[in-house]
Amino acid sequence: MLPLICFVSDFGIGDTWVGVCHAVIHRACQQVRVVDLSHAVPAFDVRQGAVVATEGVHQIPDAIHLVVVDPGVGGGRRDLCLVCESGTRLVGPDNGVLIAAARRCGGVRAAYALDPGKIDVRRPLATFHARDVLAPAAAALACGVAPDSLGDPVVPSMLVAAPFEECVAEDGVLYAEALGSDRFGSVRFNVTAEHVEELLSSARSILLSFHGGELRVPLRMTFSDVPPHEPVALVDSSGWLTLAVNLGSAVDAFGIHPCDRVTIRAAH
Amino acid sequence: MLPLICFVSDFGIGDTWVGVCHAVIHRACQQVRVVDLSHAVPAFDVRQGAVVATEGVHQIPDAIHLVVVDPGVGGGRRDLCLVCESGTRLVGPDNGVLIAAARRCGGVRAAYALDPGKIDVRRPLATFHARDVLAPAAAALACGVAPDSLGDPVVPSMLVAAPFEECVAEDGVLYAEALGSDRFGSVRFNVTAEHVEELLSSARSILLSFHGGELRVPLRMTFSDVPPHEPVALVDSSGWLTLAVNLGSAVDAFGIHPCDRVTIRAAH
Amino acid sequence: MLPLICFVSDFGIGDTWVGVCHAVIHRACQQVRVVDLSHAVPAFDVRQGAVVATEGVHQIPDAIHLVVVDPGVGGGRRDLCLVCESGTRLVGPDNGVLIAAARRCGGVRAAYALDPGKIDVRRPLATFHARDVLAPAAAALACGVAPDSLGDPVVPSMLVAAPFEECVAEDGVLYAEALGSDRFGSVRFNVTAEHVEELLSSARSILLSFHGGELRVPLRMTFSDVPPHEPVALVDSSGWLTLAVNLGSAVDAFGIHPCDRVTIRAAH
Repeated sequence: MLPLICFVSDFGIGDTWVGVCHAVIHRACQQVRVVDLSHAVPAFDVRQGAVVATEGVHQIPDAIHLVVVDPGVGGGRRDLCLVCESGTRLVGPDNGVLIAAARRCGGVRAAYALDPGKIDVRRPLATFHARDVLAPAAAALACGVAPDSLGDPVVPSMLVAAPFEECVAEDGVLYAEALGSDRFGSVRFNVTAEHVEELLSSARSILLSFHGGELRVPLRMTFSDVPPHEPVALVDSSGWLTLAVNLGSAVDAFGIHPCDRVTIRAAH
Repeated sequence: MLPLICFVSDFGIGDTWVGVCHAVIHRACQQVRVVDLSHAVPAFDVRQGAVVATEGVHQIPDAIHLVVVDPGVGGGRRDLCLVCESGTRLVGPDNGVLIAAARRCGGVRAAYALDPGKIDVRRPLATFHARDVLAPAAAALACGVAPDSLGDPVVPSMLVAAPFEECVAEDGVLYAEALGSDRFGSVRFNVTAEHVEELLSSARSILLSFHGGELRVPLRMTFSDVPPHEPVALVDSSGWLTLAVNLGSAVDAFGIHPCDRVTIRAAH
Repeated sequence: MLPLICFVSDFGIGDTWVGVCHAVIHRACQQVRVVDLSHAVPAFDVRQGAVVATEGVHQIPDAIHLVVVDPGVGGGRRDLCLVCESGTRLVGPDNGVLIAAARRCGGVRAAYALDPGKIDVRRPLATFHARDVLAPAAAALACGVAPDSLGDPVVPSMLVAAPFEECVAEDGVLYAEALGSDRFGSVRFNVTAEHVEELLSSARSILLSFHGGELRVPLRMTFSDVPPHEPVALVDSSGWLTLAVNLGSAVDAFGIHPCDRVTIRAAH
């Protein structure tokens, strides 16, 4: 099986950074395929980067995930390689951006602080560790280098925490928050398929409370299971519980934004 | 020759969908190259997706074209593989989005309704057939699987029709409509090189009638065949008759928008 | 080492042009990797294309750089292959877009006017030399074809000049101009690492004069070497002297735009 690197960043695609990282990876490892998951994470937004990375590992667990949202670049924070319980490997800065993805992969089995001296790269430029440390480390992993030869181990509990937690379930109520929305205006919550299975799966509808009001929404498999322009809740391809509007936008319809708090329960 | 998959969608590139489909394809077929033609088709816009797909097959006929604009995903509409008279193979939903491209390739020689059970994929998620059915089917074709082993045949006449027709030629007049415009503001019409050859090629200029007025435009080979900021008509790389402005924007100059009707004749 | 083509254009990614060029290259050369550096150069903006191309060769010198910003396409201007003193090879139109990059690579060692008859391509369409001449030429180079077999030599001094010069140093003052800004709002000047080394490296801060005022800025290695929301000057990954704001935007803070003139000196 060809090695695969999934790449997430807040670089945008208007500058040369994404392409330069691709070039560095191809130079270092011939057989790898590099796939861009998203470079549209808002600048410096570690939380949103963590959301996208989690969606990436959920869908492509057998890849190396390179995640670069790095406001503190070159300022002393560590560069990491994490090996998750599932075997998924993550590369990125020690600012929490990898941790929600690691949680989705069963947690951190081992963590290493990348040591540029142990990676075959030029002397890193302080402003561009993605090019000079992180991408080369991901390429090394892709070409079979063992994680523990890229740097010294770090105790997982010492890593910077994830920028968001999963929802809390209490007495049949999910205390959740919005993670963000996608191009079609569907809103995702920090509620996994497991939470839905456990607490909501017997329900045909759910009650969402937010902004002081309440919304009853059918829980279905896909958008077109409800009439056009009607709301629907489902666990979408990202692995999160999602509020959508068939052929419309839940963001436009309900004005739910990242970090907004919601409570969710089964409707009977 | 390496197999090539050309990918068109309305996914945008801010979410993980495009990259996840790339990953799925690379996992399923090692030697394939995946090329993104456009993911900027407006959300749910089957007509615009069909325009882009047609431009794709016109330019890269010897590829597999994966076209995903799919407002009804998971709702019972069929997933298709079409084999065109030219040999070009198309993969996408049965909502018309493939049919204009097939017409450009000489029409549909054979159509198959993709059967996930016959493709080596996980159980498809109802919201993401692109990942779970369509991309795997394109990858299977790229790796040499025969179209007729991916699903049962469908009578071509039973397929959902194309969202737009080619222009009608009558008494030396082309009754046409605008398909859309490109980044440089050039406007394309549903008029092919063949129509131009037949009806307009002897002309040095054409008369376009639209919005109640009339415009006389030189018919040339390239933009700079007219002075800066002057209009020019030409058959561009997309294979459509195009109204452009040299170093300017025909959209801005003339306000022609998708679906606007025009008549075109030779000017003498 | 796999051959690598770095691709810059003003095509945007909403149309099919970028993908079609990728497809043409993969068809012509199996082993090549194509990396997109940026396709967000503003339409027809040769100057900005030259800036991006220079950043590309600075970072990935051992690649073939394909640079397409080509307002005069098909109108008689030459298509070029340049071989630089460093060995870097550039492909693009003869409108100056390659020349600043060549300067960064030590200058032009040899230049060739691409002759479609010598490249294995279809008859070029006048509106899309990128697809029909430039991309095939880059692919030919990637597959080992010698530059001098792609066309006739051109005397380098006869090439269209670069759209911008490097700064002028006089009596310890750099007379410079802004080249543009990146996604994070950092502003780049036509001042190279060598200029900084020579004139400013002993300084802990620099004085920038622009718009009739003066700004004193620390000269550091990375953004976080200054407190949040404070300005900092550094030579960034692009190889240009850059004015940034830690966790902020220098464009927003100081309103410096492309072509704005600045003078720069060491602060003592």
